[in-house]
Amino acid sequence: MMPAFVTLLTDFGTADAYVGEVKGAILTAAPGACIVDVTHDIPPQDVESGRLALARYWRRFPEGTIHLAVVDPGVGAARAALAVSAAGRYLLGPDNGVLSPALLAPEARVVALPVPPSAAPTFHARDVFAPAAAALALGAAVESLGTPHPAPLIHRTPEPERWGDGTLRGEVIAVDRFGNAITNFLALRDGTVEVGDAVLHLVRTYADAPSGAVVALCGSSGLVEIAQRDGHAARTLGIRRGSSVLFRPATQ
Amino acid sequence: MMPAFVTLLTDFGTADAYVGEVKGAILTAAPGACIVDVTHDIPPQDVESGRLALARYWRRFPEGTIHLAVVDPGVGAARAALAVSAAGRYLLGPDNGVLSPALLAPEARVVALPVPPSAAPTFHARDVFAPAAAALALGAAVESLGTPHPAPLIHRTPEPERWGDGTLRGEVIAVDRFGNAITNFLALRDGTVEVGDAVLHLVRTYADAPSGAVVALCGSSGLVEIAQRDGHAARTLGIRRGSSVLFRPATQ
Amino acid sequence: MMPAFVTLLTDFGTADAYVGEVKGAILTAAPGACIVDVTHDIPPQDVESGRLALARYWRRFPEGTIHLAVVDPGVGAARAALAVSAAGRYLLGPDNGVLSPALLAPEARVVALPVPPSAAPTFHARDVFAPAAAALALGAAVESLGTPHPAPLIHRTPEPERWGDGTLRGEVIAVDRFGNAITNFLALRDGTVEVGDAVLHLVRTYADAPSGAVVALCGSSGLVEIAQRDGHAARTLGIRRGSSVLFRPATQ
Repeated sequence: MMPAFVTLLTDFGTADAYVGEVKGAILTAAPGACIVDVTHDIPPQDVESGRLALARYWRRFPEGTIHLAVVDPGVGAARAALAVSAAGRYLLGPDNGVLSPALLAPEARVVALPVPPSAAPTFHARDVFAPAAAALALGAAVESLGTPHPAPLIHRTPEPERWGDGTLRGEVIAVDRFGNAITNFLALRDGTVEVGDAVLHLVRTYADAPSGAVVALCGSSGLVEIAQRDGHAARTLGIRRGSSVLFRPATQ
Repeated sequence: MMPAFVTLLTDFGTADAYVGEVKGAILTAAPGACIVDVTHDIPPQDVESGRLALARYWRRFPEGTIHLAVVDPGVGAARAALAVSAAGRYLLGPDNGVLSPALLAPEARVVALPVPPSAAPTFHARDVFAPAAAALALGAAVESLGTPHPAPLIHRTPEPERWGDGTLRGEVIAVDRFGNAITNFLALRDGTVEVGDAVLHLVRTYADAPSGAVVALCGSSGLVEIAQRDGHAARTLGIRRGSSVLFRPATQ
Repeated sequence: MMPAFVTLLTDFGTADAYVGEVKGAILTAAPGACIVDVTHDIPPQDVESGRLALARYWRRFPEGTIHLAVVDPGVGAARAALAVSAAGRYLLGPDNGVLSPALLAPEARVVALPVPPSAAPTFHARDVFAPAAAALALGAAVESLGTPHPAPLIHRTPEPERWGDGTLRGEVIAVDRFGNAITNFLALRDGTVEVGDAVLHLVRTYADAPSGAVVALCGSSGLVEIAQRDGHAARTLGIRRGSSVLFRPATQ
């Protein structure tokens, strides 16, 4: 039988023992689970970064995978603790938007987990989500874990504005480790991308550009990215999350 | 059969290949072991941070788990290399205090591991502790791995001073990634915590405080923490490890 | 049966979701694989650091292990995507030198992987190397994955110059997290190491030196390292990758 994969996305960092406590809680209750680290380096309390990261990988794991995604500035307060079943995968995390990619899937089922009185109000990953992950790994149905939660909080990546002349006005939604600035433009071609004073041509891959050149390309997530060959585009152009970008289609 | 879990806590960082060498050594000797990363980001040679981290997770893993905890500024010198059996778990690490949480457990058994002449004097994690972890994963008894070591070095978290009027004087023992300052006050209530000029009220969780407020609360380890809602308490108040804190009980 | 280990070395960092996407792609195609993180913190696009790290661990894993090593500034361009079989292990990565340690092994076999049209030109780790890792984990032969690639790019650590009087002139090839500066001198003894104005004596281990002393020693990789007891040798002496070092043998 395939092991139950339990992936972890948190903003806990790895200098403290929090990740160890969560892993121990999962494996004590479900020793057959296979834990897979995705990241513990989401910037502290940056729900939006967590949401965008989760969107990229949650469907790439096998059906049956349990994704724990905890970026949780409101831990211990009124926000619900969710378990979600969507597209054959399971997801666990706070009701603050971080699970949106799965909540938007057709036929997603959502329950609110009970919080036992013994749970530390500041550490639901260990005391609420880890036990739920173990229960799912042992074969429990999502519905058995809590009560239906009809209106979870859903965040969406903003859509670009479309102007009359076909120009799109969008924004940078993330900057990655390599300095690539990921925009909210879906798979475009034949046109230019403008950011600040720079006018960038669309290429197929970084390596099609000469060293040092800043270009736009359709990235591996399907979104247009601004990248610099052998450099850090965001630093070079002074781009950050939220920076405005324009796409102007080529004139026919 | 349950796999043998081998957890890793080190100060090796993850930019070099040391962690890979240790994992390879374990899996070559015990291919059925299941390696679980806890942290490789203990500050270099900071034994005390390693000790405090280990204290939080070592009992949360299933019985039979093997915990490797290597923060080892004295590697290759006279300090012993230890294997410990305590509370049904196994621990491996240098005799410098890092294993104290397990050494303090009732009926802990401790042996000193032999150091083979082929071991690199600067890398006992790979050449001494990893082979011992593999032997334990394959079912060896702790006693078979070395010779009894009757007086291992034990570090304790300092106890707060108790003053005549019920006031406690303690200190900050750690600051976590979120800026929470963890004190050596065990589970207190009904009083105030003072640090520098700040007088902080005890709340149940961060989220009970208004945004920006600095509060004290009983953290997930059972110790009182100083935290800031939507902020970094340690930076805001200028707190660091070793900072003095006072607890004044509420007057009846 | 032993699981197939798939180790990961990348420069992806862990703040983004790239590592998660790669892991998901491997586990979806080969759910029985056991993924082992070595490092995702190779400095961005630093092929040489990747090569030196791989050299240290690839043979320490059991035979049958699959090592994915992706530091790939030329992704999507003309460089081939390689699968290598050497010393009973398998390796996957770009043809840019990063796989050199395995390519130098006797009887290494090398194929170039086909790049499917659906592969993202900027993310071969997910779309080319991960599927190949899964195929190997499921038992495919390297030869079945691609076409023979007779002349892969091989980088070598530079050899020290040998002067007439027995002096060696070498260089620092890496600085680790602890500030140890690793040279290209293989296992030397009885002499002194000079770097800048400093003349360093060879000792057996850091702990043989008094606190604060900078020394030279034969490190755990078999190369001479410059280290400081309770300090950061590279920072103290202003050493970096590429710094010149001299070894002068003791006069008889």
